[in-house]
Amino acid sequence: MTIRSLDFLEQWRPFFQPYHLIVIQDGDPSRSVGVPEGFDYELYNRNDIERILGDKAWCISFKDSACRCFGYMVSKKRYIYTIDDDCFVAKTPSGEDINALEQHIKNLLSPSTPDFFNTLYDPYVAGSDFVRGYPFSMREGKPTAVSHGLWLNIPDYDAPTQMVKPQERNTRYVDAVMTIPKGTLFPMCGMNLAFDRHAIGPAMYFGLMGEGQPWGRYDDMWAGWCVKVIADHLGLGVKTGLPYIWHSKASNPFVNLRKEYKGIFWQEEIIPFFQAIKLDASVTTVEAAMLDIAERVRKGLAHLDPYFEKLADGIVAWIEAWRQLNPEISH
Amino acid sequence: MTIRSLDFLEQWRPFFQPYHLIVIQDGDPSRSVGVPEGFDYELYNRNDIERILGDKAWCISFKDSACRCFGYMVSKKRYIYTIDDDCFVAKTPSGEDINALEQHIKNLLSPSTPDFFNTLYDPYVAGSDFVRGYPFSMREGKPTAVSHGLWLNIPDYDAPTQMVKPQERNTRYVDAVMTIPKGTLFPMCGMNLAFDRHAIGPAMYFGLMGEGQPWGRYDDMWAGWCVKVIADHLGLGVKTGLPYIWHSKASNPFVNLRKEYKGIFWQEEIIPFFQAIKLDASVTTVEAAMLDIAERVRKGLAHLDPYFEKLADGIVAWIEAWRQLNPEISH
Repeated sequence: MTIRSLDFLEQWRPFFQPYHLIVIQDGDPSRSVGVPEGFDYELYNRNDIERILGDKAWCISFKDSACRCFGYMVSKKRYIYTIDDDCFVAKTPSGEDINALEQHIKNLLSPSTPDFFNTLYDPYVAGSDFVRGYPFSMREGKPTAVSHGLWLNIPDYDAPTQMVKPQERNTRYVDAVMTIPKGTLFPMCGMNLAFDRHAIGPAMYFGLMGEGQPWGRYDDMWAGWCVKVIADHLGLGVKTGLPYIWHSKASNPFVNLRKEYKGIFWQEEIIPFFQAIKLDASVTTVEAAMLDIAERVRKGLAHLDPYFEKLADGIVAWIEAWRQLNPEISH
Repeated sequence: MTIRSLDFLEQWRPFFQPYHLIVIQDGDPSRSVGVPEGFDYELYNRNDIERILGDKAWCISFKDSACRCFGYMVSKKRYIYTIDDDCFVAKTPSGEDINALEQHIKNLLSPSTPDFFNTLYDPYVAGSDFVRGYPFSMREGKPTAVSHGLWLNIPDYDAPTQMVKPQERNTRYVDAVMTIPKGTLFPMCGMNLAFDRHAIGPAMYFGLMGEGQPWGRYDDMWAGWCVKVIADHLGLGVKTGLPYIWHSKASNPFVNLRKEYKGIFWQEEIIPFFQAIKLDASVTTVEAAMLDIAERVRKGLAHLDPYFEKLADGIVAWIEAWRQLNPEISH
């Protein structure tokens, strides 16, 4: 979690207290952060990142929510949940509090169906199944690597859409979890996101954003493009839908536009670039796939901006650091 | 519509009466079918099909719901809605009657988004939009060719699933319409289905099923595989989700198993066959695509059963008949 103020944890206490928290303190490391009493947590600030990663610390963004991915690397747990500090407990249409973490765990522990679309959505939940015409050989599904949750109230819009529709609120509760089909990319939002660190962790690199970098607000998008290409290649599933969180406040669209505007141009080339990636059958691990993508980024995107050569180096440094910190799950 | 008893139309009267009905009477043509008063309709029985199609009438199935596709061919309308006679008006969770036809029309008249997944579902409905990270160049979307609606109460299960879960009812109302991404096939159910006849009509061939044929209950599935491959190739969209209808009764699973069992084996090869089809850029019309698929079926599926050579001939006869009856929209 990237956290500026930790008061939001009070509302999550019934759901989060049984779990271990990792707090990545962004910005000035001399500032003190108070975690409400009773939580089991580790806190890392910039000095810790520098100390732990040494000459690779530069691959972790500074003054940007992208710094959260350091937490993915130092965790010793298998399942990670990341949430923004302006996200609160949402309610179902019948008024019950939504235990987001519980739903994410259910999503991650049941298979995905990336190879064929099931029109009644998640076939593994009670009251549902595979419909007529779904091949029996595909009903075992694939292991789920990612669970992407959604947001009631303030939708996750880009700055131009925020400016055009400042009053829009998401009030539609869609009672479904579905697998994003193989070969289809999606905009992965880091606000309410869970994943299996053993299955896909090294792909959850949130890039170089924030201070000294040419763009922001594309940290989760970048990770999402890498994650989906790699999950598709390795036969892993990515789900989206439930659970909802309550996203309380819209960020400033003018600030967002300044961070985003290069991304708005670049994504027009980057997304087709990722859509066209076909990893070789010899690539059999997430780490190898990330290093492969790094070299493709270096060659295929540097014409947009020399920044992408640095980003390629960042991916390489991230994977090296991941291996050092996770020798037991690295390949 | 394939209709054995037309009483179900009474419940649909407020929604269907403004529209033109085409009734395809299956089985014995000497039997009389009573359409409730006040509907504007045409009725075709087997004698009519023989008279109108002459030496191509054999391409329309007999004693099977697949005969409904004759109606698609003789219609003079642009938008078609097909519904089974055991489907009634469903209710929203708040208890309002669902005007299925109105929702299908909305789905067909708004674009689809097959090239990139929008996590807030249909971005064109009020209260929704494209999320952050959705490329602006793709926001115009693609024309929608098909709207696939769902079913409350009795889900559309195959015979084995019906047998294993005889009590299962679909009570989950998922308040969403979504585009099935490009490159992903789905099990298209003909129970509650609408399409743009000008955009995709010739692909809506329900095959050779029923009397004298080795399988049944794969009429809509067959059409769905063809439709999706062709829609993807031609840059058209296929949506699924709302509207729901109330599916009142489960068909007999033992009868269904007899009809289905070859399909249960065959689909394991047919689906990968369709997934692998890459139509040539020179194929620019639905009719040309169907003729291309017919030749692929003849070569690629006849090892399963000589039936598939006859089915290939059936597709060719269907397209020839379509052209004769629809000279103004044929290419």
